[in-house]
Amino acid sequence: MSTVDNAPRTESPRSKRAVIIATAIDRFGEEGFEHTKWATIADDVGIGQTALYHYFESKVHCLLTIMRLELSNSVERFKAATSAADDPAAALTAAVASAYEASPRDALQRRILQNHMDLLATKRPSKKEEEERLLCRSLVQEIEHNWTGLVQKGIDDGTFRVDDALLSARMLLALVVGVWRWYRPGGEMTLEQITEVMAEAAARLVDSAEVPARA
Amino acid sequence: MSTVDNAPRTESPRSKRAVIIATAIDRFGEEGFEHTKWATIADDVGIGQTALYHYFESKVHCLLTIMRLELSNSVERFKAATSAADDPAAALTAAVASAYEASPRDALQRRILQNHMDLLATKRPSKKEEEERLLCRSLVQEIEHNWTGLVQKGIDDGTFRVDDALLSARMLLALVVGVWRWYRPGGEMTLEQITEVMAEAAARLVDSAEVPARA
Repeated sequence: MSTVDNAPRTESPRSKRAVIIATAIDRFGEEGFEHTKWATIADDVGIGQTALYHYFESKVHCLLTIMRLELSNSVERFKAATSAADDPAAALTAAVASAYEASPRDALQRRILQNHMDLLATKRPSKKEEEERLLCRSLVQEIEHNWTGLVQKGIDDGTFRVDDALLSARMLLALVVGVWRWYRPGGEMTLEQITEVMAEAAARLVDSAEVPARA
Repeated sequence: MSTVDNAPRTESPRSKRAVIIATAIDRFGEEGFEHTKWATIADDVGIGQTALYHYFESKVHCLLTIMRLELSNSVERFKAATSAADDPAAALTAAVASAYEASPRDALQRRILQNHMDLLATKRPSKKEEEERLLCRSLVQEIEHNWTGLVQKGIDDGTFRVDDALLSARMLLALVVGVWRWYRPGGEMTLEQITEVMAEAAARLVDSAEVPARA
């Protein structure tokens, strides 16, 4: 699911919101949030700073929105991937695979999310920023809850031979998102190769009775 | 090893450097870097802004220094922990354990490091910031290299039944540092409990023939 799809459906066709978000993802992802000047986004999009402020009141507001959209996509991807799985081992493989369904821009967006999770820890001074922050926090909890539920099912039916579903879910999430630190499109490994290796690693991590075989 | 120990030995006993760093770790770690005003650090330490600039030319310069000190500590901890280990399985357990030897402030420092790794991606405009960034990058490479070497030894002697030492090292690092996202001193799990569970998880991740037994 692309970021653009996640923009509100009520937007005017002339809205620049989607293009601002895509531009910000490219800049924040490739050059870093701290390094990117807010005015540069306006220049890239070809609008003035005043017009930019119509969509986002600050660079942080835009960043939090990018993070919220990615978290929301992550929840949807997980649901879509795991709903069709017959058993916990298949659900784990599907959930891991869904994390790596990513365009190059999605990969940047996921790296941005991982690199700015500390923003979610403290109250924001502005109302719009704070709204996005609270949405992000509740989505983070939902993701942790969903992965914990998946692991718990595997523990309950004896497939996953670990004790603590929440801790195992946190480990799985750390493992899965850690890839965005080093993955680069066109790099040594393709996302297909990463998916395969990570699905196997995830199964080992929960001591699964069914570790997927490598191709 | 505490941050304060890592300050240059040539510093004057009246230097405020160590206390500035400790104060910044507390503020950046508890309230977030973005959220912390640089002037607040000066106030906390009880010095003026001019005096503060004598030590660090910017908030980012201070952050990068905190990151570099933690990365440097991490290299030293790994070496100290693994040098005495008899075999790759013992070395892995020792390396994981060394990651969780942490005071509450060390835990904050490690969270700060993880939350700002994207700062290392792009050249800094100032010379002092750029110096710290390049030191950080070379330490990150050294850490990855050291963990890869540990895994490779285990692959070579048949203890770790995985194919790719570098990829496995990256997974182990993601797993190990992921804890700093959710760990809080006084929280549900102690660092001793975390050490035990993570050592076992790390062994499973590399498909070790010797997974440490839980107490």
